[in-house]
Amino acid sequence: MANDKKLVEAITSMDVDFAQWYTDVVKKAELIDYSSVKGCMVIKPDGYAIWENIQRELDKRFKETGVQNVYMPMFIPESLLQKEKDHVEGFAPEVAWVTHGGLEPLQERMCVRPTSETLFCDFYARDIHSYRDLPKLYNQWCSVVRWEKTTRPFLRSREFLWQEGHTAHATAEEAEERTIQMLNLYADSCEQVLAMPVIRGRKTDKEKFAGAEATYTIEALMHDGKALQSGTSHNFGDGFAKAFNIQFSDKDNKLKYVHQTSWGMTTRLIGAIIMVHGDNNGLVLPPAIAPVQVVIVPVQQQKAGVLDKAYELKNVLSGFRVKVDDTDKSPGWKFSESEMRGIPVRVEIGPRDIENGQAVLVRRDTHEKITVALSELDVKVGELLKDIQKNLLEKARSHRDAHTYTAVTMDEFEKTIEEKPGFVKAMWCGCQECEDKIKELTGATSRCMPFAQEQISDKCVCCGKPAVKMVYWGKAY
Amino acid sequence: MANDKKLVEAITSMDVDFAQWYTDVVKKAELIDYSSVKGCMVIKPDGYAIWENIQRELDKRFKETGVQNVYMPMFIPESLLQKEKDHVEGFAPEVAWVTHGGLEPLQERMCVRPTSETLFCDFYARDIHSYRDLPKLYNQWCSVVRWEKTTRPFLRSREFLWQEGHTAHATAEEAEERTIQMLNLYADSCEQVLAMPVIRGRKTDKEKFAGAEATYTIEALMHDGKALQSGTSHNFGDGFAKAFNIQFSDKDNKLKYVHQTSWGMTTRLIGAIIMVHGDNNGLVLPPAIAPVQVVIVPVQQQKAGVLDKAYELKNVLSGFRVKVDDTDKSPGWKFSESEMRGIPVRVEIGPRDIENGQAVLVRRDTHEKITVALSELDVKVGELLKDIQKNLLEKARSHRDAHTYTAVTMDEFEKTIEEKPGFVKAMWCGCQECEDKIKELTGATSRCMPFAQEQISDKCVCCGKPAVKMVYWGKAY
Repeated sequence: MANDKKLVEAITSMDVDFAQWYTDVVKKAELIDYSSVKGCMVIKPDGYAIWENIQRELDKRFKETGVQNVYMPMFIPESLLQKEKDHVEGFAPEVAWVTHGGLEPLQERMCVRPTSETLFCDFYARDIHSYRDLPKLYNQWCSVVRWEKTTRPFLRSREFLWQEGHTAHATAEEAEERTIQMLNLYADSCEQVLAMPVIRGRKTDKEKFAGAEATYTIEALMHDGKALQSGTSHNFGDGFAKAFNIQFSDKDNKLKYVHQTSWGMTTRLIGAIIMVHGDNNGLVLPPAIAPVQVVIVPVQQQKAGVLDKAYELKNVLSGFRVKVDDTDKSPGWKFSESEMRGIPVRVEIGPRDIENGQAVLVRRDTHEKITVALSELDVKVGELLKDIQKNLLEKARSHRDAHTYTAVTMDEFEKTIEEKPGFVKAMWCGCQECEDKIKELTGATSRCMPFAQEQISDKCVCCGKPAVKMVYWGKAY
Repeated sequence: MANDKKLVEAITSMDVDFAQWYTDVVKKAELIDYSSVKGCMVIKPDGYAIWENIQRELDKRFKETGVQNVYMPMFIPESLLQKEKDHVEGFAPEVAWVTHGGLEPLQERMCVRPTSETLFCDFYARDIHSYRDLPKLYNQWCSVVRWEKTTRPFLRSREFLWQEGHTAHATAEEAEERTIQMLNLYADSCEQVLAMPVIRGRKTDKEKFAGAEATYTIEALMHDGKALQSGTSHNFGDGFAKAFNIQFSDKDNKLKYVHQTSWGMTTRLIGAIIMVHGDNNGLVLPPAIAPVQVVIVPVQQQKAGVLDKAYELKNVLSGFRVKVDDTDKSPGWKFSESEMRGIPVRVEIGPRDIENGQAVLVRRDTHEKITVALSELDVKVGELLKDIQKNLLEKARSHRDAHTYTAVTMDEFEKTIEEKPGFVKAMWCGCQECEDKIKELTGATSRCMPFAQEQISDKCVCCGKPAVKMVYWGKAY
């Protein structure tokens, strides 16, 4: 019973301390554990199962667009990392360096990949000869390392899991098209699979990826009003191709440089799910990626027939991911635990329910209780899961829209950021000076120049000069 | 046309130079490419797709036995690696050391995991408290690094992909049971999925894993008569538990050490598939793991209706992994290429076939040509794929059995190893001295003490003292 209380009591209210609430949830929902390696986490079964479900959904969508999976080495020789100037400047300060192999020092030190553009380019330079070899649409699932100073589970860790797509094309147009295609694939996946609405747009030059011509991003709003960059897609133009000499002979027999893209999503998405859908009872998982979609909790399970009935219902629900909680904990503890773990639907079944040929369904998202006839259980659970998936997206969208503001003046901007955490939409002249100043005054950064532009005023919110873009601004993770 | 010839000519005959044949196949079948990182390979789409298929099959079987996937950090602090004496001695000479994070030296250097026993133990010591927490049945899919001096694609590379299962149990019996269970799961997967027969047995003390009480192994015989260790399963007893202090309070309220196992399979299996099934035309893939199971080659594809018919047949065969080779290469080139890539079934369809309502099927394993009515294509292809899967296993088993010899004296032993590459079954007294001497005299190592023991004589083949075990010996990769 001591354990019972601990589980329920130990979670901090998100209104009191959101950061602590987040930490409590990742631990209590058993998604991760800390490890002996500072800044690196142990991803526990439930955390990893969420990642596997995200992987499966993304991988299927990638392959439908012709993408093939490959695997590159995890090490990058220092000389290779240095080939593209902007890229090395961006990453060199935050890589882990391998200097010894076995007992001997290496002739050239290598870093553990922080991202693999240089490795793909090195490979493409050898592998691409003719227009017939194009496009190359490669992706890899792997872990990468960035030696961050401050870390938080899923959001910012020294090692994280991700996919990185790297494509090479014959023309600039095709590369741009692929860059946008993958951004849209990411955005659609976030909405359909993670029930997480995102803003699609382009990063300013200041915020773009080291070595990219253009970076596109999807930005989500967390429950606390902070933004989270949830996926990026980069168009490299022919910058890397020139640095790595990736040329092909085209149909016209001329040697040309390829045009490249890269795009990535990470385990950070799990942090996003937590902070978009979670509540004071713990995790709330969208059914599409919940490791367990339905938990069956037998009530008075020691009574004859109750456990048998629970297993029978599991078979009835075989089209879903179902678990019977047959541990010797109390039903109350099991209810709390299933809420903490974010399981979308709970089925309660006790002797009286069995007598009446019914069960009680409890939705994780609304806590609504529904009594259903056992003969309708399968159909009803299917409907509920669909409805929960839909409801979570709508709820998140309402929250995001309710926390998206506009500002025409810096006064308005500062006051909004100070008092109302969320996105601020404001016009911008295109100068980095204003971007820097806004950050200095408000702590907010430009999240993106959305594809869906609006005309909020005709002047830059900061300097008053003619505006060129409407920008989403916000404090960010 | 220059390319046509190159593809077909460049492969060395396996009878002339088996090692070169292997290298030719991995390159020409486009499974890998070399990288700028010495000893590390680029796994190309076809190589990676084979790995994905192996992963899917193994992962499904693991999960059916209750195993859950997790993810541990890729780094091991030096002090953690040193906790178990035998283990550190086994691995320290061949690890890659990270000494700097970003621009600063680390306080304690870390190695890139060569295997993760120490990380799992560190985690289990924190995570396991009560008998209720047991068993832990965890697995991870990841890459590991071992700084080998000589490397070969798939067989021995400095970085390779694998799965490593790590379990913790309340009793020694349960740990032993799990060790054997996973070995049998591996063996069954090799036979059913990879069509590769294996010998199941136990390693001698000399050959066992660093830190293990007992190591079990499956050993396969390659086409050239060399053995390949294809999967191992280790019982650690409570050795790691004592070194890492992993204790739990049992039902009797006493503190006890857990008993642990670990078991792994790697991308080495792809090397095994190549060397067990391949022939002088290239790769031969078992249908269960072939990225493409059926290739449709249109003949005279420029003629009206031929390509359309090819795509139509692809739809007819939608239950299989099918590709239409509609490139502008000649049919002859496509035939050679499909053989090189090891695609199990080729469907040839030209204008005359269409007229006659038929197609020609060609089996990769026997090169047999079969003319079938298009109305029966789907059924016939399904039968063929099953038959090829079965035939490959039988063929490999016959080859293995035909290359398994017995030796009663050292003279016989030496002569057999010298003249007839393969397994030698011979009796052994149990002393490492004899093991060492046999290796010195013949180059063969003890592969395993098979579960299925036979009584070949009653004396050790080496020293003549009473024998305790029949052992499979062989030269090995």
